[in-house]
Amino acid sequence: MMNIQVLSLFPPMFEGVFQHSIMKKAQDKGAVTLGVVDIREFADNKRQVDDYPFGGGAGMVLKPEPVFNAVESITNDGKKPRVILMCPQGERFTQQKAEELAFEEELVFICGHYEGYDERIREHLVTDEISIGDFVLTGGELAAMTVIDSVVRLLPGVLGNSDSPVRDSFSTGLLEHPHYTRPAIYRDMAVPDVLTSGNHAKIEDWREEQGLKRTLERRPDLLDHVELSDKQKTILARLQAEK
Amino acid sequence: MMNIQVLSLFPPMFEGVFQHSIMKKAQDKGAVTLGVVDIREFADNKRQVDDYPFGGGAGMVLKPEPVFNAVESITNDGKKPRVILMCPQGERFTQQKAEELAFEEELVFICGHYEGYDERIREHLVTDEISIGDFVLTGGELAAMTVIDSVVRLLPGVLGNSDSPVRDSFSTGLLEHPHYTRPAIYRDMAVPDVLTSGNHAKIEDWREEQGLKRTLERRPDLLDHVELSDKQKTILARLQAEK
Repeated sequence: MMNIQVLSLFPPMFEGVFQHSIMKKAQDKGAVTLGVVDIREFADNKRQVDDYPFGGGAGMVLKPEPVFNAVESITNDGKKPRVILMCPQGERFTQQKAEELAFEEELVFICGHYEGYDERIREHLVTDEISIGDFVLTGGELAAMTVIDSVVRLLPGVLGNSDSPVRDSFSTGLLEHPHYTRPAIYRDMAVPDVLTSGNHAKIEDWREEQGLKRTLERRPDLLDHVELSDKQKTILARLQAEK
Repeated sequence: MMNIQVLSLFPPMFEGVFQHSIMKKAQDKGAVTLGVVDIREFADNKRQVDDYPFGGGAGMVLKPEPVFNAVESITNDGKKPRVILMCPQGERFTQQKAEELAFEEELVFICGHYEGYDERIREHLVTDEISIGDFVLTGGELAAMTVIDSVVRLLPGVLGNSDSPVRDSFSTGLLEHPHYTRPAIYRDMAVPDVLTSGNHAKIEDWREEQGLKRTLERRPDLLDHVELSDKQKTILARLQAEK
């Protein structure tokens, strides 16, 4: 069972996400334990977790002691878990990173707030720095929940066969083809004829082409990193010629 | 006041995030109203929101009716808000997009679960498709919360002066310099001498150089998109020569 511990200054932020949907299911199935540690409990007797930056400037900086102490309260059994700092300067999170983290037995996430972290946390305590993208969040909590969701759903037994992660976007390296469900006609909007034809070979061809088309239109960069079959290469060449 | 409405199959997921930290503060200050609409309430009398995909295959697809109906329940006052679909195929979310969305009066977010959305939702109902990155999440909820956090913190009056967004990473186009706070020496780890020197010109120079150095080391791609001052160009040339 994977053990995930999150250090945060706002533990109640995690309640809704950790107690519903996939996170609840994963805990109920015994695939993961999820805990939230309040960094403030490891502060000095004034419960002060942040302080002014050396050198002046706006904003407050998360102090080193409470964070070192909080991490050590988790790792005092001698384990050396991955300690992941959520920060905009970190490595960009990808599906490959999710798959890598899903093999770990224990993960610790540190979520900052305020202007930043004392640099000594970054240099001496963490093993990974992860960013979920080039945008600014109030704190690391939502970024940590995002990473945890993407990791937990990969753990054995969490997803049923019916929603296997195998054909997800990014698992194949391409964007997915469009999906349609009933009704076949909704407010004059009809599903493509091929999908109701019953011809499975044609349906597979259509899906393959649509996935390639969508990737070419929206994320051509993904095509540089994926191994295409000869058939896919032929389709792609035709789509590019049509463009 | 901005009005944000989120359509979800798991409304309780939002409780922790919408009721704490910046989201609570922003609502208390009257900068935003946040609502969550349960898509299931707009399903037919069997409360069925998903169905098998036309053409076969694994996974369930979110049906069009409940989503169209839920969006229309919000927009029946004649307003035409941005309707944002959270999905891995969407435009990559950036700080520029957050700044753009922060000017809107009303935003509607659609969060899917299951294998995907019926394509007619994408084609006929939404104005924007946003992805927060190349990784797979169980649903759109965490992605929507992430976008909402980054937008809400930009609204007038939400952040105090002390934590102004101006110097954040990505707002300047560069990564931030390291931060340090007290104690000056923690477990033999000392802050850089320059920061305790009291020489403000030297401190500014150090910070400027450290921000450029970190960007060069970790995210050189950002340097292609930023307008550097002559001084910054000189520092950067030296750093590149030293490398």
